[in-house]
Amino acid sequence: MPEPIEFWFDFSSPYAYFASFRIDEIAARHGRVVDWRPFLLGVVFKTTGQGPLTHSTMRGRYAQHDWVRLARRMTVPFTMPESFPLRAQAASRAFYWLDDRDPAKARQLAHAIWRAFFGEGRDMTPPDAVAEVAAGLGVDKAALLAGIESPAIKERLKTETERGMAQGVFGSPFFLIDGEGFWGNDRLDEIDAWLAAGGW
Amino acid sequence: MPEPIEFWFDFSSPYAYFASFRIDEIAARHGRVVDWRPFLLGVVFKTTGQGPLTHSTMRGRYAQHDWVRLARRMTVPFTMPESFPLRAQAASRAFYWLDDRDPAKARQLAHAIWRAFFGEGRDMTPPDAVAEVAAGLGVDKAALLAGIESPAIKERLKTETERGMAQGVFGSPFFLIDGEGFWGNDRLDEIDAWLAAGGW
Repeated sequence: MPEPIEFWFDFSSPYAYFASFRIDEIAARHGRVVDWRPFLLGVVFKTTGQGPLTHSTMRGRYAQHDWVRLARRMTVPFTMPESFPLRAQAASRAFYWLDDRDPAKARQLAHAIWRAFFGEGRDMTPPDAVAEVAAGLGVDKAALLAGIESPAIKERLKTETERGMAQGVFGSPFFLIDGEGFWGNDRLDEIDAWLAAGGW
Repeated sequence: MPEPIEFWFDFSSPYAYFASFRIDEIAARHGRVVDWRPFLLGVVFKTTGQGPLTHSTMRGRYAQHDWVRLARRMTVPFTMPESFPLRAQAASRAFYWLDDRDPAKARQLAHAIWRAFFGEGRDMTPPDAVAEVAAGLGVDKAALLAGIESPAIKERLKTETERGMAQGVFGSPFFLIDGEGFWGNDRLDEIDAWLAAGGW
């Protein structure tokens, strides 16, 4: 059984949102499953000296145009949220809390959070907003909120972020395939080819 | 007759080097020609606050691995030059000087400069090194060296860089198709699809 592909992402990343529609299918085509690993890109930025794309006028203007254009090509919804960039602590912690209990449901929650944030432009920073979306999937709201606030889950998000960085994850989305890193939504076709060829 | 595709690049950019093998063929497939436009990425970095990929440990480590991997996939030579990043003033000025006289030859010069720099790891910063490579293509060495040093060509490189920035060029390679920007070697397949579909 081949190792899972690791899909590292910050919920605030539009390019990760776009990749989330394709990565599971690409992996499945080659007999792989995907481990979804949210992390906090802001923590990584402290090491790399980078910042959100929208913090530079030229790069930000390009990125915003590119996101709308990508959404049009993929025919997926995209609304630039007023609350961008998202502080993704609650969303990420909720994911890990649920992932420990029901991995398939955690995946659904990630999709639902993104649909609310980038699909509808809703602010997904508050734990309540995340819990509301989770409740729509049948998750117990109070239990989830308690989970988000638990020291164990806070620590979990920290250690996952550190684990990603230790493996070279510095951007979102970032894919790890048998230790091989691929950065960016625009590498999905290359990943597909890599998996088909068994590398090069 | 459709507008030419603009291919903006810094000679120091490995990703532009990789793109240089493919962009003309992709454009030709859709009845387009390509205008090659060298510019100085360092000037743009002053505006965007960015820096060479290799200046950040995490991004640099990834990039260096990625370049070798890309070269392997494309079966093109790649040697990390000790003199990286290249100060590309001489190379860029030589290109524009020759482009005014013999555009086809200027394209050949660009390929030859890259073959020397990324193919063989030779330092292409000194005007003499550029002129030597040009001489191998039958270009008069003394005339080229005088051209590189002429105020008109120095000014030309400045105004081209400014013209690129005015159109939103902030990275290398950067492609402009009827005003539509695409950033990165990893967008070439998207460009191919865009040209085939007439946009989306």
